[in-house]
Amino acid sequence: MKRLLVIGVGAGDPDYITMQAVKALNRVDVFFLMDKGPSKDSLIDLRREICARYISQPGYRLVEAHSPQRRSDDLDYTASVQALNQDKQQVFERLINEHMADDECAGFLVWGDPSLYDSTLRILQAILDAGRCTFDYEVIPGISSVQALAARHKVPLNRIGGAVEITTGRRLAAGQVSTADSQVVMLDAQDAYQQVADRELQIYWGAYLGTADEILIAGKLKDVADQIERVRKAARHANGWIMDTYLIRKPD
Amino acid sequence: MKRLLVIGVGAGDPDYITMQAVKALNRVDVFFLMDKGPSKDSLIDLRREICARYISQPGYRLVEAHSPQRRSDDLDYTASVQALNQDKQQVFERLINEHMADDECAGFLVWGDPSLYDSTLRILQAILDAGRCTFDYEVIPGISSVQALAARHKVPLNRIGGAVEITTGRRLAAGQVSTADSQVVMLDAQDAYQQVADRELQIYWGAYLGTADEILIAGKLKDVADQIERVRKAARHANGWIMDTYLIRKPD
Repeated sequence: MKRLLVIGVGAGDPDYITMQAVKALNRVDVFFLMDKGPSKDSLIDLRREICARYISQPGYRLVEAHSPQRRSDDLDYTASVQALNQDKQQVFERLINEHMADDECAGFLVWGDPSLYDSTLRILQAILDAGRCTFDYEVIPGISSVQALAARHKVPLNRIGGAVEITTGRRLAAGQVSTADSQVVMLDAQDAYQQVADRELQIYWGAYLGTADEILIAGKLKDVADQIERVRKAARHANGWIMDTYLIRKPD
Repeated sequence: MKRLLVIGVGAGDPDYITMQAVKALNRVDVFFLMDKGPSKDSLIDLRREICARYISQPGYRLVEAHSPQRRSDDLDYTASVQALNQDKQQVFERLINEHMADDECAGFLVWGDPSLYDSTLRILQAILDAGRCTFDYEVIPGISSVQALAARHKVPLNRIGGAVEITTGRRLAAGQVSTADSQVVMLDAQDAYQQVADRELQIYWGAYLGTADEILIAGKLKDVADQIERVRKAARHANGWIMDTYLIRKPD
């Protein structure tokens, strides 16, 4: 039986990797690396560095595949992600069918944690449900950017007895805000924090968390939102991409 | 300057520890272990095991302190936690003042992740704000039981583009449910999943995650809620304590 390991490697800092992930890396015969284009080359490089640093017996293979991109024309967001996942499913099936022997173990290295805003688990389950490949798989959790954000700002995510909502920039911009008193926002491509009505809220913002390029800004929205927007735009321009996350709530 | 490291050691499995946490453990001169009574001795034992396994230069000290317990008489929950944290603050101040030299590094080992339903960061900040000790501190994130739950059930926490609320059993039982389509419930001492009106919802439940005693149950509430309640009661009786977590949402 083929075996797949979906390995969370943590968000940014190679030291975020767990001992469980290190053991998993050392079981892998072939790593499938999804290439998202030149602007994300540094993410592939970090995965290569993690393999080189933590695998004690070289001899593993690396197979790179071009990762399909989301078509953002006239579809709604969920439909466009579903279409993207179908494209990815074909790529994954090809990798599993053509690049692994029956008794081999393959690894997917997932940025952050595989359970949060990552489609790998959903795609593998869809492949199994479709019945075109058979394999076992395991999931190894990793430190997410949400946790890195809280650790670097030294703040708890929740208030005492309070709830935390992890949501998307898209939802925040659409006004889909919950009653949770702490909101963590991911995947915000559109500066959705600028559309939050209550400018007295505190924001804890971080970009490239855990890396040498890490940027942290905290303060009330009315005081720091414009700074975040400027810094964000400049960093995105300089690096060709940005990954950022933030926590918003009423001040203590 | 005294330096405190708040080290997330992950939820249950010693292999959940990160390389960053291992490096932090090896910087510590004295570990402060909070003893929560005989029923939680296995948690102290796991911390001792982590120190023994991952610290390469023995010579560190372990200082155990009795952890104050929450008084649950007539106070509301938030007030009783605030009172508890004031008691803990006095214990922490005593530990920092009496058990560390000025240039030493102390470690707090936090179960799971220090940013999620843990009071250590809040208490340290309160001590600094009160001005009765001075120290620097760092926060090292750890794999939370939420992530362990998702990994062991091999499910994503979020739906595509959807939000995830992390909340408490107390809030769920009080009907304080958000619009997030995935709900993760922690600190549920009262089987709050039995009070969820929609029995068609899917629940992914886990106890003692990552340990040898781990129990996983998944299914629709109408099919598995009574089983979870029975298993939970029996396990709590057998072990003297229970830590469990669950994810609830509409089936796919």
